[in-house]
Amino acid sequence: MTLLESVRKNRISSIVKETAQAEGQGPSSLVERIRKGWVVIPKNKFHRISRPCAIGWGLRTKINANIGTSTDSSSLKDEIKKLQIAIRYGADTVMDLSTAGNIKKLLVAILENSTVPVGTVPIYEAAKEAKAKRGDFLKFGKEDILEIVYRQAQAGVDFFTIHAGVTLKSLEALKKYPRLLGIVSRGGALLACWMRRYKKENPFYEYFDDILNIAHRYDVTLSLGDGLRPGSVVDATDCAQIEELKILAQLCLRAQEKGIQVIIEGPGHVPLNQIKKNIQLQKRLCRNAPFYVLGPLVTDIGLGYDEISAAIGGAVAAGYGADFLCYVTASEHLRHPTLEDVKRGVIASKIAAHAADIAKGIPGALDWDREISLARKNYDWNRQLSLALDKDGVRKIRQSSQPKDADTCTMCGDYCAIKLSDLA
Amino acid sequence: MTLLESVRKNRISSIVKETAQAEGQGPSSLVERIRKGWVVIPKNKFHRISRPCAIGWGLRTKINANIGTSTDSSSLKDEIKKLQIAIRYGADTVMDLSTAGNIKKLLVAILENSTVPVGTVPIYEAAKEAKAKRGDFLKFGKEDILEIVYRQAQAGVDFFTIHAGVTLKSLEALKKYPRLLGIVSRGGALLACWMRRYKKENPFYEYFDDILNIAHRYDVTLSLGDGLRPGSVVDATDCAQIEELKILAQLCLRAQEKGIQVIIEGPGHVPLNQIKKNIQLQKRLCRNAPFYVLGPLVTDIGLGYDEISAAIGGAVAAGYGADFLCYVTASEHLRHPTLEDVKRGVIASKIAAHAADIAKGIPGALDWDREISLARKNYDWNRQLSLALDKDGVRKIRQSSQPKDADTCTMCGDYCAIKLSDLA
Repeated sequence: MTLLESVRKNRISSIVKETAQAEGQGPSSLVERIRKGWVVIPKNKFHRISRPCAIGWGLRTKINANIGTSTDSSSLKDEIKKLQIAIRYGADTVMDLSTAGNIKKLLVAILENSTVPVGTVPIYEAAKEAKAKRGDFLKFGKEDILEIVYRQAQAGVDFFTIHAGVTLKSLEALKKYPRLLGIVSRGGALLACWMRRYKKENPFYEYFDDILNIAHRYDVTLSLGDGLRPGSVVDATDCAQIEELKILAQLCLRAQEKGIQVIIEGPGHVPLNQIKKNIQLQKRLCRNAPFYVLGPLVTDIGLGYDEISAAIGGAVAAGYGADFLCYVTASEHLRHPTLEDVKRGVIASKIAAHAADIAKGIPGALDWDREISLARKNYDWNRQLSLALDKDGVRKIRQSSQPKDADTCTMCGDYCAIKLSDLA
Repeated sequence: MTLLESVRKNRISSIVKETAQAEGQGPSSLVERIRKGWVVIPKNKFHRISRPCAIGWGLRTKINANIGTSTDSSSLKDEIKKLQIAIRYGADTVMDLSTAGNIKKLLVAILENSTVPVGTVPIYEAAKEAKAKRGDFLKFGKEDILEIVYRQAQAGVDFFTIHAGVTLKSLEALKKYPRLLGIVSRGGALLACWMRRYKKENPFYEYFDDILNIAHRYDVTLSLGDGLRPGSVVDATDCAQIEELKILAQLCLRAQEKGIQVIIEGPGHVPLNQIKKNIQLQKRLCRNAPFYVLGPLVTDIGLGYDEISAAIGGAVAAGYGADFLCYVTASEHLRHPTLEDVKRGVIASKIAAHAADIAKGIPGALDWDREISLARKNYDWNRQLSLALDKDGVRKIRQSSQPKDADTCTMCGDYCAIKLSDLA
């Protein structure tokens, strides 16, 4: 039985209790939302994690950090370090997006070392294996895909990104209404190439029931990927994107009916004034299934600073109801991220998620702000620094510039407004 | 005659033409908005600047960078470097907030070296001088204040922050409805201390007409400061803040009647879901006078990363109609900012302003995004990097991690979605 099936039979497992408690909520309201598909707890039956989490309606906004090798940069050691950094600074989940090196070995290492749910994009390993075995990364078929999905599920992956919405129909919309930047999702682009070469339907769509069977067996949550998400704010919310979302909504229902939890993935690049309607449309079409957005970036000009463009979009998206933010690092569009990029990306995303939680009125969200403000009021620097996201980092900043009066900081010095305010 | 007076007589000066052109707009609609007080062009009669700007309704969102010495960190050389960095990375104006060292000399140097409008907070020099002359930074009176305002206007300052809304009445509201963090504006706190000690009304309020006379003579724009802005999201949009805003609205009218351009300053620390009403309230009460917000920070927990919290708040505020964003650096609440902090702060603010300009539909705003996306589509890395805010920085990032295929980057390598998309 999957978690969704057990919840439907009114069984409240320990993981439901545990995640409900972590949210400061009672298990019964969480159970109700899981049953309706509004909330998911991504956890593979065979993956032991100490920090599972619930994602969805009315809960604290969760954040994901992408790690993994690329064909230009492939070190198992670095990726494990990234995993640790991501978790230390607040990632609620990580995704291993490796496309190079020993993918199998790295995934096992990440699954072993992760205290949080782990996601993958199985098409990457299928392409990598096709290239290794047959010299061509498009030389894979139904059996190869199902084998890899099965193997990764068996290894313990908690959630899969499946780009099943890149279909002949949605690609038709893309062709009919062209955009500036075509397909910017690696998985989406791979499948579009495959479909074009073999003149066949997307195997993830065509054999969706087989994928569901594997997901069911290991209780893997499906994250239905948006392979056709626009890659420029100029292309945002276009026909291909919406056509794909409609397909994802149908697949969402099919998966839920089979007792499998579902997350819907969303863009990408979205101007500020289109974020609200993007969230509303997803929530409406997918009947409140959790929405997992990549950023979104609110402009394309932030090259080298895309963690900031993504924090703006992520905060606004989550404020309007997105449940799960995928971080974007400063190196996005430029290079394979460094350890420092991962750290800063997680922190930026965490700030965005927390700002949204205040706006959404998540119970207890403001407590953190209250505590830090109180420490400021009381000149309690130790307390203030200990409440920061980057405790070591802020301590170093503070130490780098010592005020004459230890109560204050070197920004205001003698004119510390809080000190003056105490006098007034 | 001030610029506002000349515009009222339908005279279109060269500066109006120049700033209208920089906005890609005709001068007549700009003139109309300046006349109504919806737009200002801060420029002292005697300050020569090559990059003046118009701020307000329907225009590109402008950003300000604060620089200046503190009692713990006071180097003229560093502050001039900060000025140059701020302008290089896109600041439309700078404010010299010096409270230590030779304030007069530094201000002259900043005015000489700045190609953009320069603002100050004259109360700082009044306090500094009182301390130097009489050993107590509160030992200043009406004459001292007016003398410094006069001197700074004569030196060429383009806009003054005047905390004239910290009155006996607004302080009464603060006392009646206490908040977690009292007064967090240095100017506001100084004036509250002064008022309490001397049991007198705020001299900037009481002698507002004298201030107006000086501003009129040199055509200095007034930026009516929010000395009672909340310093924690927990305190946002409270009675004291609104009481002060109502006073600023009245003073705004008085100044405009005398032919002086006015900007209204706003918070500070505001949760995401309160930003829209803050903007609407200011626009309504102050009859669409330009709104200049400090951040706002959408959470207090971003210690060491406050440029991100401010970018989120600034983008949303400007998207709803704020016209002018004051940057916040990563060192805010921690130390006097470094050169790197200034650079990153300006860039973060610039991303926020641009994201808002797309959302507000500012003509031409999307062109930049289109250009950068087109360069991405065409694998034109030189073009792409040359369009970045931090051209040298992104070039270094790119060089630090070289892909095998020069068209791609090391993030995706062989799986570059844009390349795959071209195949599909």
